[in-house]
Amino acid sequence: MQVAGQLYILSAPSGCGKTTILRQVMVNIPGLAFSVSHTTRQPRDGEENGVAYHFVTKEAFTEMRDENRFIEWAEVHGNYYGTSRQAVADQLQNGQDVFLDIDVQGAAIISEDSSFDPVSIFVAPPSLAELERRLRGRGTDSDETIALRLQNAAKEMAAASQYQFLVINDGLDDAVLVMQSIIIARRSRTNRLPDGTAIILETDK
Amino acid sequence: MQVAGQLYILSAPSGCGKTTILRQVMVNIPGLAFSVSHTTRQPRDGEENGVAYHFVTKEAFTEMRDENRFIEWAEVHGNYYGTSRQAVADQLQNGQDVFLDIDVQGAAIISEDSSFDPVSIFVAPPSLAELERRLRGRGTDSDETIALRLQNAAKEMAAASQYQFLVINDGLDDAVLVMQSIIIARRSRTNRLPDGTAIILETDK
Repeated sequence: MQVAGQLYILSAPSGCGKTTILRQVMVNIPGLAFSVSHTTRQPRDGEENGVAYHFVTKEAFTEMRDENRFIEWAEVHGNYYGTSRQAVADQLQNGQDVFLDIDVQGAAIISEDSSFDPVSIFVAPPSLAELERRLRGRGTDSDETIALRLQNAAKEMAAASQYQFLVINDGLDDAVLVMQSIIIARRSRTNRLPDGTAIILETDK
Repeated sequence: MQVAGQLYILSAPSGCGKTTILRQVMVNIPGLAFSVSHTTRQPRDGEENGVAYHFVTKEAFTEMRDENRFIEWAEVHGNYYGTSRQAVADQLQNGQDVFLDIDVQGAAIISEDSSFDPVSIFVAPPSLAELERRLRGRGTDSDETIALRLQNAAKEMAAASQYQFLVINDGLDDAVLVMQSIIIARRSRTNRLPDGTAIILETDK
């Protein structure tokens, strides 16, 4: 019997190292995947449909949007991006644990959508001062952009208590340990086992 | 601000390796302790009061028992052993996560006692056949004792689904990883942080 996967909602202010943490967690434990979004942008060379994205026409996208088939969607540089309920449901049904990387507003919407029973995780920097130091260290953003990012980060962090878990990235190894612990613990819940204790006695039958 | 510790209720059929797992988990992560029971037996050489046990007279014990101050108690070889609510509460208040090693009946009682909000973990062998193999391998029990232990184990395992988490000991390293993941994840819940997100911004004040 296949147990359906767990949906994880992840949010983090820009520069918190969320993606770096997740990549390492995915190396450490199997059965994890990012959600596959729909997009109207053109596939780049080598991009296979259904892997990084589901590529659709603008017409198909707006139809799905109007039918409320996206958990969340956005327009970026003239292209549409959206997370379809069905795509996430398919991945979960496939037994994968799915990460949904989403902003604070989107996370609030999904948390209320009980059909997914998501686990929500907020990744935070140890402090705003440290976040500023990291953003400056990247050397990619103007002072103005950094100021804006910090302002947004402060706003987002005010919503952290609405998440179930908080991972403070005060060092990659520790943050990875906490993130993977949340996943491993979740997989060990008795209510995620097929048919109660049957699994224990499987080999005795 | 001191965050109170988390109470963990642990049950396992005899021979599952629960104690070995816990000892390793305690080496790996700080802030964990076993609950300190009350007993009427005499302290052995070097046993300090309040460390492995609270040593009390039979009169003191029965008075506590009659005042319903024990979560659970038992008589073993003419001595009384009991877990006092206050002793556990003191350890938790001290910020320690406390393991309470208890049988299936006792676990059911505490799970209903909402004042502790315990996390319950059942440690199981991968199968009854494997448990039998381990019990025989120890070479300490008669065939009769082993048969009785296996009968009890089957009964206890039928109650496993009443626990929140299941740790299957199919290898010490994996079982330790799962057990410590449950604890690390629990410590990362936002509702266990003092005052919501204040901790994140602490260093910015």
